[in-house]
Amino acid sequence: MAKETRQRFDPAKLTIFAQEVLQKIGMPKEDALLTGSMLTACDLRGVESHGIAHLQLYCNWMKEGNCKINPKIELFDLSPSTAVIDGDNSLGFVNGHKAMTEAIKRAEKTGTGFVSVRNSKHFGAATYYAMMALQHDMIGISMTAGGRMMIAPGSTGRAGGLNPIAVAVPAGKKHPFVLDMSTSVVAGGKLEIAKRQGKPIPEGWLVDGEGKAITDLSKVDYRNPEWRGGILPLGGSPALGSYKGFGLSVLVDILCTTLSGAALGTMANHFFGAIRINGFRPVQEFKDDMDQLIESIESLPPLPGVKKVYVTGGLEEEIVAERTANGIPLDTAVIQQLKDLSAETGIKCDIER
Amino acid sequence: MAKETRQRFDPAKLTIFAQEVLQKIGMPKEDALLTGSMLTACDLRGVESHGIAHLQLYCNWMKEGNCKINPKIELFDLSPSTAVIDGDNSLGFVNGHKAMTEAIKRAEKTGTGFVSVRNSKHFGAATYYAMMALQHDMIGISMTAGGRMMIAPGSTGRAGGLNPIAVAVPAGKKHPFVLDMSTSVVAGGKLEIAKRQGKPIPEGWLVDGEGKAITDLSKVDYRNPEWRGGILPLGGSPALGSYKGFGLSVLVDILCTTLSGAALGTMANHFFGAIRINGFRPVQEFKDDMDQLIESIESLPPLPGVKKVYVTGGLEEEIVAERTANGIPLDTAVIQQLKDLSAETGIKCDIER
Repeated sequence: MAKETRQRFDPAKLTIFAQEVLQKIGMPKEDALLTGSMLTACDLRGVESHGIAHLQLYCNWMKEGNCKINPKIELFDLSPSTAVIDGDNSLGFVNGHKAMTEAIKRAEKTGTGFVSVRNSKHFGAATYYAMMALQHDMIGISMTAGGRMMIAPGSTGRAGGLNPIAVAVPAGKKHPFVLDMSTSVVAGGKLEIAKRQGKPIPEGWLVDGEGKAITDLSKVDYRNPEWRGGILPLGGSPALGSYKGFGLSVLVDILCTTLSGAALGTMANHFFGAIRINGFRPVQEFKDDMDQLIESIESLPPLPGVKKVYVTGGLEEEIVAERTANGIPLDTAVIQQLKDLSAETGIKCDIER
Repeated sequence: MAKETRQRFDPAKLTIFAQEVLQKIGMPKEDALLTGSMLTACDLRGVESHGIAHLQLYCNWMKEGNCKINPKIELFDLSPSTAVIDGDNSLGFVNGHKAMTEAIKRAEKTGTGFVSVRNSKHFGAATYYAMMALQHDMIGISMTAGGRMMIAPGSTGRAGGLNPIAVAVPAGKKHPFVLDMSTSVVAGGKLEIAKRQGKPIPEGWLVDGEGKAITDLSKVDYRNPEWRGGILPLGGSPALGSYKGFGLSVLVDILCTTLSGAALGTMANHFFGAIRINGFRPVQEFKDDMDQLIESIESLPPLPGVKKVYVTGGLEEEIVAERTANGIPLDTAVIQQLKDLSAETGIKCDIER
C-alpha cells in the first residue's frame, strides 16, 4: 500500500456523526445508524468513492425531496425463495439491507434466496450486502443497475449503466473471496479521480461519439447528459471480448430492473442473492477447500515488480486491518463537507481520533 | 454473416448418426440420443468448436476408459432448492441435462433451483443447459470449470480455467437474451482456429512465461502442459480491469468445483441454476419489458461499417434460422472424422441433405 499522508479519523465517531446528521434531517434512528455504519464500513475497506464522501449528497437529495426520508417500503412475497421489494423512492442503504436480510432468511429455509428491488436510490458499495451472507455461511450476491454511461459494442450510442456485481464467498483461515466489479472497463470513480488530478487516462476507458479513444479528460464534459460518447464495456474492444462486459451489464439490468418491475432506464434498482453452503456440502469441508484454492493462487510466481499475487478481497482485508488500527484517512474536500454539514445541522463534528 | 462455401448437411441425420455411433460403443440409447441432439444443436447455433466436431474425441475417451459409458450418476438432495450430482466420471452432456432438469424442478417448487456437479467430463457448449430454462419461463444459468490455462493478474503463473458462464433470459416477440462467455479475453477455440490458419492473433490474448505478449502462434506450443504462459483474463491488463475477468473465473471454479466437493484442479465440474420469472412478476409483463430492453439496444446508432447492433443471442438466432433452412456446414476435416467413425463402427454415414 502507498504511504498515507492524510489525516486519520475515528471510524466509530464518523458513524455516529453520519447517524446524527441523518436523524437531524428526519431519518428514523435505526435507518440513520444503518446508513452511517455502512458508509464507514466502505471507507474502512478503502472504497472512498462510496463512503462518507457521499453523506452531503444524500442529505441534499433528501432535503430536496428527490429521495424519501420516511418511506413505506413494501415486500411482495411471491415464492418461498424469491421476493420483490418496492423501496418507495428511498435511499438504497435501507432497501438493500432489508432485501439482503430477506434473501438470507429465504436461503435459511429453502437453500437459496433472491430478492429484486425497484424504486430505490444509490445504495453505496455493492460489497457490503454480498458480505452480509458470510456470517451465515452463505455465498452472497449483490448488484445494482442504473444510468446510461456504457457504450454498446458496434455502436456509438450508450446502453445501460456501469452496473456493478459483487459476490462474497466465505473461506476458513484465509480471507473471504470478495469480488466487486463494474461491468465496464473502469468504474466511474476512477475517471473522477483522474479528472480531479488532471492526469491522462489509459486508452480504452472512454470513447467519444464517433467511437474514438479519449485520453485527455480536460477536453470532455463526460458527466453532461448531452455529451455523446461513454465508457467502454469490460473487454474494451470486440477483439478483446467487449460483448462479454456488455452482456454482463445488460444481465444486471435484467435482474435489477426488468425482474423487479421497474421501468426501463430508471435508477437505481438492485438484485440480491444468498446461497447456503450446506445446501451443497458440509461448511467446514467447503471452507478448507476455499483456503486451499486461495493459497494456490497467492503462491503463484509474481511478475517482476509485483510484491504479491492477490485473490480478490485479500488486499481489502489488509486495508481494513490497517484502517481499523490507524483510522480512516479523508480528503480535505470531504472534511470540509462534513464541517459544512455540522454547521448546517448543528451536530458537532467530533470525528478526531 | 460471411458467405458460406462449405458443403451443408442435414441436422436430423447428423443427430441420428451421432446417436447410433455412441450406442454402438456402448452408450444407453436415451443418453446417446440426448448427446447427439445436443451436439447438433450446437452446430445449428454456429458454435462449431463444441458440436459434432467433438464426436470422435468423446468416442475415443470412452473407448480408452477415460470416461464411463454406463455411469451410476448419483443425486444428493440437500435442501429444497439445491442439490449436488456426482457424475461418476461420465460425459458431461447427460450429467448436465440431468442437473439442469433438477434445477428447473426445484425452481418450479421453491422459485429457484441450483445444482452443482462433480466428477463429470466435457459438457459441450454451456448455452444449451441455460436455454433449457426458457420454455419454463425461467432464467437459466450454466457454468463449467476446469483446466489451468488462465494467467493470474500480477503473476506469470496459471490459475484456473477459461471457465465459461452462460445465462439465458426469455423475451416475448424478440429473441431471448443468451450470454455465453469464457471469463478469458478469448475462448480457446479462437486460438485453435488462428493456429490452424497460420494467422497472427491480436496483442492481449496470450502471454509467455515472462508475461510478454504473443502474437505469432507458430512459435509456441501453448497446448503443451509444460509450456509456461497462458491466456489473459477478460479485461486483459490490470489497467483495463483484468482482475474482473480473473475474479469471475475463480468464482466459476468455486461454484463448480469447491461447492460440488470436487478436488481443486479437477476437470470438469459444472454449476446450473434456474430462476422462475413469476417468482418476481407476471411473466407476460416481464417479457414485454424484455422486448423493450432488447429493442432499445438494437436501435442504437451503429459504428461506421457495422450493419446492426446486437443484443447477445440475436446473431445466434439468425444463424439457427439460416442453418435450419440450409443445413449445417462442416469442415473437410470434420467430415473425414465422421467417415472414419463410420468405417470403425459400421454405422452408415448418411448425413447428406
